Amino acid sequence: MSFDFSLSERTAEWRDRIAAFVRDEVIPREQDAFAGGVTDALRAELQRAARKAGVWAPQVSIGLGGGGFRFDEAAVLLEEAGTSLLGPLALNCSAPDEGNIHLLDAVATGEQRDAYLRPLAAGDVRSCFAMTEPPPGAGSDPAALRTTATRAPGGWRITGDKHLITGADGAAFAIVMARHDDREGASMFLVDADNPGMTVGAHARTLDATMPGGHCRVTFEDAFVADEAVLGEPGQGFRYAQVRLAPARLTHCMRWLGAARRAHGIALDRALGRELFGAPLASHGMAQQLIADNEIDLAAARALLWHACWQVAEGARGTEESSRAKVFISEATCRVVDRAVQLAGGMGTSDELVIGRIYADIRAFRIYDGASEVHRMSIARRVVRRAGNRVAADA
Amino acid sequence: MSFDFSLSERTAEWRDRIAAFVRDEVIPREQDAFAGGVTDALRAELQRAARKAGVWAPQVSIGLGGGGFRFDEAAVLLEEAGTSLLGPLALNCSAPDEGNIHLLDAVATGEQRDAYLRPLAAGDVRSCFAMTEPPPGAGSDPAALRTTATRAPGGWRITGDKHLITGADGAAFAIVMARHDDREGASMFLVDADNPGMTVGAHARTLDATMPGGHCRVTFEDAFVADEAVLGEPGQGFRYAQVRLAPARLTHCMRWLGAARRAHGIALDRALGRELFGAPLASHGMAQQLIADNEIDLAAARALLWHACWQVAEGARGTEESSRAKVFISEATCRVVDRAVQLAGGMGTSDELVIGRIYADIRAFRIYDGASEVHRMSIARRVVRRAGNRVAADA
Amino acid sequence: MSFDFSLSERTAEWRDRIAAFVRDEVIPREQDAFAGGVTDALRAELQRAARKAGVWAPQVSIGLGGGGFRFDEAAVLLEEAGTSLLGPLALNCSAPDEGNIHLLDAVATGEQRDAYLRPLAAGDVRSCFAMTEPPPGAGSDPAALRTTATRAPGGWRITGDKHLITGADGAAFAIVMARHDDREGASMFLVDADNPGMTVGAHARTLDATMPGGHCRVTFEDAFVADEAVLGEPGQGFRYAQVRLAPARLTHCMRWLGAARRAHGIALDRALGRELFGAPLASHGMAQQLIADNEIDLAAARALLWHACWQVAEGARGTEESSRAKVFISEATCRVVDRAVQLAGGMGTSDELVIGRIYADIRAFRIYDGASEVHRMSIARRVVRRAGNRVAADA
Amino acid sequence: MSFDFSLSERTAEWRDRIAAFVRDEVIPREQDAFAGGVTDALRAELQRAARKAGVWAPQVSIGLGGGGFRFDEAAVLLEEAGTSLLGPLALNCSAPDEGNIHLLDAVATGEQRDAYLRPLAAGDVRSCFAMTEPPPGAGSDPAALRTTATRAPGGWRITGDKHLITGADGAAFAIVMARHDDREGASMFLVDADNPGMTVGAHARTLDATMPGGHCRVTFEDAFVADEAVLGEPGQGFRYAQVRLAPARLTHCMRWLGAARRAHGIALDRALGRELFGAPLASHGMAQQLIADNEIDLAAARALLWHACWQVAEGARGTEESSRAKVFISEATCRVVDRAVQLAGGMGTSDELVIGRIYADIRAFRIYDGASEVHRMSIARRVVRRAGNRVAADA
Repeated sequence: MSFDFSLSERTAEWRDRIAAFVRDEVIPREQDAFAGGVTDALRAELQRAARKAGVWAPQVSIGLGGGGFRFDEAAVLLEEAGTSLLGPLALNCSAPDEGNIHLLDAVATGEQRDAYLRPLAAGDVRSCFAMTEPPPGAGSDPAALRTTATRAPGGWRITGDKHLITGADGAAFAIVMARHDDREGASMFLVDADNPGMTVGAHARTLDATMPGGHCRVTFEDAFVADEAVLGEPGQGFRYAQVRLAPARLTHCMRWLGAARRAHGIALDRALGRELFGAPLASHGMAQQLIADNEIDLAAARALLWHACWQVAEGARGTEESSRAKVFISEATCRVVDRAVQLAGGMGTSDELVIGRIYADIRAFRIYDGASEVHRMSIARRVVRRAGNRVAADA
Repeated sequence: MSFDFSLSERTAEWRDRIAAFVRDEVIPREQDAFAGGVTDALRAELQRAARKAGVWAPQVSIGLGGGGFRFDEAAVLLEEAGTSLLGPLALNCSAPDEGNIHLLDAVATGEQRDAYLRPLAAGDVRSCFAMTEPPPGAGSDPAALRTTATRAPGGWRITGDKHLITGADGAAFAIVMARHDDREGASMFLVDADNPGMTVGAHARTLDATMPGGHCRVTFEDAFVADEAVLGEPGQGFRYAQVRLAPARLTHCMRWLGAARRAHGIALDRALGRELFGAPLASHGMAQQLIADNEIDLAAARALLWHACWQVAEGARGTEESSRAKVFISEATCRVVDRAVQLAGGMGTSDELVIGRIYADIRAFRIYDGASEVHRMSIARRVVRRAGNRVAADA
Repeated sequence: MSFDFSLSERTAEWRDRIAAFVRDEVIPREQDAFAGGVTDALRAELQRAARKAGVWAPQVSIGLGGGGFRFDEAAVLLEEAGTSLLGPLALNCSAPDEGNIHLLDAVATGEQRDAYLRPLAAGDVRSCFAMTEPPPGAGSDPAALRTTATRAPGGWRITGDKHLITGADGAAFAIVMARHDDREGASMFLVDADNPGMTVGAHARTLDATMPGGHCRVTFEDAFVADEAVLGEPGQGFRYAQVRLAPARLTHCMRWLGAARRAHGIALDRALGRELFGAPLASHGMAQQLIADNEIDLAAARALLWHACWQVAEGARGTEESSRAKVFISEATCRVVDRAVQLAGGMGTSDELVIGRIYADIRAFRIYDGASEVHRMSIARRVVRRAGNRVAADA
Repeated sequence: MSFDFSLSERTAEWRDRIAAFVRDEVIPREQDAFAGGVTDALRAELQRAARKAGVWAPQVSIGLGGGGFRFDEAAVLLEEAGTSLLGPLALNCSAPDEGNIHLLDAVATGEQRDAYLRPLAAGDVRSCFAMTEPPPGAGSDPAALRTTATRAPGGWRITGDKHLITGADGAAFAIVMARHDDREGASMFLVDADNPGMTVGAHARTLDATMPGGHCRVTFEDAFVADEAVLGEPGQGFRYAQVRLAPARLTHCMRWLGAARRAHGIALDRALGRELFGAPLASHGMAQQLIADNEIDLAAARALLWHACWQVAEGARGTEESSRAKVFISEATCRVVDRAVQLAGGMGTSDELVIGRIYADIRAFRIYDGASEVHRMSIARRVVRRAGNRVAADA
């Protein structure tokens, strides 16, 4: 009817509950996790606590045991969860499971819902999304996909190399993107971890450190899967990738917005308590500039995010909106965290002050789910195409 | 109850009407105005056309003959008006009159409404807002105000220097900010142009060129005004300044967002039609980056603006929100216009292609109504104060 | 044999003399020139004063009456000249004449030296360089050249449109780039202003305002020139363009570095004298950041410029070095001037404080002589080619 | 007498030798070091190899067994060493030892030279520089120093907390900055690792990972040192800090410039070999922009660095020059590495591709040895003071 930026009462309640939960249950476990890694035992413990606290899976439908929030409401809640790097894991709204749940909920068959979606939504298992390939395969350009699925009696045989597959080590199953050997399309396949043709290999030693299951090389060698392992309909791989993509980008934005806010808050508290050259750090103009620029970036990121999420919630596909939001928010949050490091000084680069951990973990956000440059290209092409059509129509 | 970013039907209708009006009536008059200056005759002509087109003064209350739109709806309409540098003038929603109308509507006495507000809202006269003083007077720091108002029988005598007073030359009256001679406060005064103690001096030769009445030195030498010339209540000068300030900042954001969008659109059209190194300019990656960054900046600016305006429409004072929006949007729109210049090449610096004119006109936006640095300081201080209070409360 | 950044005594003397000259003779004439335009009468007056002050044409060879400085020494002197927008004109080291003198000195025939080079170096006449064409002609991509030169008995007939030709109005001659009608090459032609086939048309209304002769549309309609009008050798047009290009880019950098330094200095002086919120403006952290960033940008720009100029002085073609320097310095100086505007506040956008004038005049520097994007493309291609060769050699 | 940017033959030879050494001896050991940490065994092995390769300690005087290069020549050589994160360690030109050698060489007594400087310059031992304290002690503001040295019979007793002391764990001795208990000055003390009053505590878990000895908490509790442990003269602590500071900043710039160049080179090689959307990655405009911006930043950083180092080599104290260079180069190299990550894509965040390791390791460079903001403040204050003096002199 007209603009409304107010939160529903239920959203506000969940937000406050999540904030308390992160503060009381998640943050106390951070340092151990930073030092020792995020184990599945920690994950289980955090998830039990989240259920108990009544903050389980806000973005998951009520039928699957989640909060059932609209996508724009989820923006508020996942931001809150993201204020700890472990928060989304606790609430079962972390990548890649959150995106896989969304995808399965949208396209899985009835049997697949029971076998894969329900346990995943319940947190009983983890999953991974095996799309990215080492060059020259599918990376920022999905069309370069090289993993193949070949027809075999009663099913398919999958062969190919994947890398940087987040969460692969310990996942109960992988959603695998593979091109049909006739090259006429691609399908997604549900491949169980015990499939003898699938091997989870080395973890890449990347900047981030809080992702259970790492970022692994995954190899498929003639991995046989039955027909029922085709996710949804065969030949729909690229379309399904789109179903997953725009929302998954935006949930990344939600979570990282929370993480950036956290880093900013820590730096701010530190600036409050320190003196420099005889005056509180926070009274120095350049510190104020860092603080103000963080406030501005966070506010702009949030407003843009909410708008994009509202459009998706209203049924838009959101490709362009999510591209714009992803570029802006991935860059804005990186700026915010970088300023927080600077404001906090030497300890700002440490795990102990958390900011250093966030700085390292957030970097890849400007790359995965489409590097900033790829989104910019896609945004520009769309606007140029529209402008061209307009010019043609005027002629 | 929950997020809603949809436009009301009436807002959408006005927006489309304004777009058509700007395209058909305003843009054709731009080049003459750029070459010859914006005269009051042109202003009158444009305003007649606006009334005829049914797009008069969207932000002004219906009782005063305007569109009566909420402040967040006005954001949409003033952006549209701003797509020509002359559009806001045509719709009577340009600075400084728009802000003066808002202020008078909020605080003027009954007589003042009749004598000053009605003719101003009707476009019969122009006005100016005489606040800024040459150093060491009131600039970014209103508290440095030096112009004084001294009690005199039946009224006040005002003495002081103002500079960069937009629209002063030809204004029917000025709203003058002056400090009481006992230094215990400040008042605003309505000073008629024919007041013998008021002299409108030289126009500053500034970058911009589409402001009727220029940016003038204005001198008050024992200018006598009667008691009835005190705007609203005496002693409320600083408070009234706040009443005007936050909304005036945001309407600047609305208009300049439109101007930046226009510059982007012109550059885009030009990029469509040009070849460079054997390929359309718009297919080059660096051109795409300029285009995409403009799209992203415009979208983020708009989202942030709408949020801030919604808060003001809901009754918030909006000091902090408008500061954040002003900094972000003034800088984002300047970036957008700068990229448009770059994309358009040599002619991008020209009046003929309009972008050059916008580039020059928009620069001061990062300075007036609070320079970016002053807003940043104010934003940081507020957040630091809140953080300090929170820390104290936790203790 | 090893690094040396010290100035020769003669260079230091000239630098100081130029500084005094600009301060005493040039700056006092600025405001009239800003208000009324730069006339040829003013040019003659300034040039007389420069000769008298012993600062004439530092970059021109001694045989032609100039200072005869090496190119890297000239970097110091032209920076100093550039501290007024009129300084380079006074010293006859301004675009486009400075570049034309350099080109003629390198490639003109004996007769052409007498007829064109000597009077130009002496300041008796002005010239222009007619290369740029309206789209789809030669702009950032010289290869798109469309103006043609057709063989005619005893000479050539030139036909084509040029635009944004700086200094065309009032120039004694133009150096015109035209493609042979057999498309097998291009030549440069010396075309006298009174050639009946050449028409100097409208001045573009661009942001800058201190260029005598404007930026004009120039049309050639079957303009006949004799064989002797071919500059140097026929068919060498593109090669000669390179001869002119790298040094001309770098002299732009020298001059604009001076202008940016001037803007910074003015803003600094202003910051010294102003109070804001009860403290000198220059003591505020954000003002200090503007000041420090300007100092840093100026120092980095100068160091990079000197290095590139030293390479050219040592005989390098300098294509890549001048591209890097041009991109960095055009962007750094624009940043410096922009910060100066911001630091100076409202009056920073005015001609009166000079900064506003510099802000407008400098904008096109990021576009002419190769837009930043075109240089970036060229830099990247070269480095990629080298890297490719290296990889191939290793294999 | 005039500009010269050419390298001496000996410098060029060493540079090439260092390049070969890094390629053949250092880089092959990187992955093990990244995975397992930089041990003292590795350090010893690398240093033996460096001696054998004839590239030992280029910046150390010949009398101490080093290369004896001027400071501006060292800029070339330490950049080359920095192309591996382990290179400076191998050549004994890494922080903090390199700065400690410089300081000891400048101020140590004869006995201290034998006992501390010679073994350090020879690589027989490591050292640390214990200046930084946890808030509210000495960080960016050295004047906040809280560690105290109290007169005791025959020596001093030192008490205080230091943190983020690089290389403390395993260092043979620490140079400790402490304030005299009468608060009238500060001294530096040479404290042996086996001093019972000194405790090396926990390593901070910071972003970087290639610093032998970590960044440790170091505590002094009534640590007794004899009079001979006062480095140089008592009461000269703050002055000695300046002796170490400017050169140490610049050698950081040298080394990190090399690291940034390395990251750029790796990303470039990767861009050469990858296809994206059917074309080589390096042919995409946005990739070219990343590449070109890196080339430009590296060239500007190097030019600025050479200039500052030449000034120091010529005897200048270099406070202001090194501040400017440190701010620009620390920020420019961080930009370069960030772009390299982006260009390299997902693997760009990994240790395997080295870029990810450099990204993490380089972040603190914008903080230590004076955060960018502190240098900016200092730069601005100096320039403002000079401008003020000039204005006063003119008056």
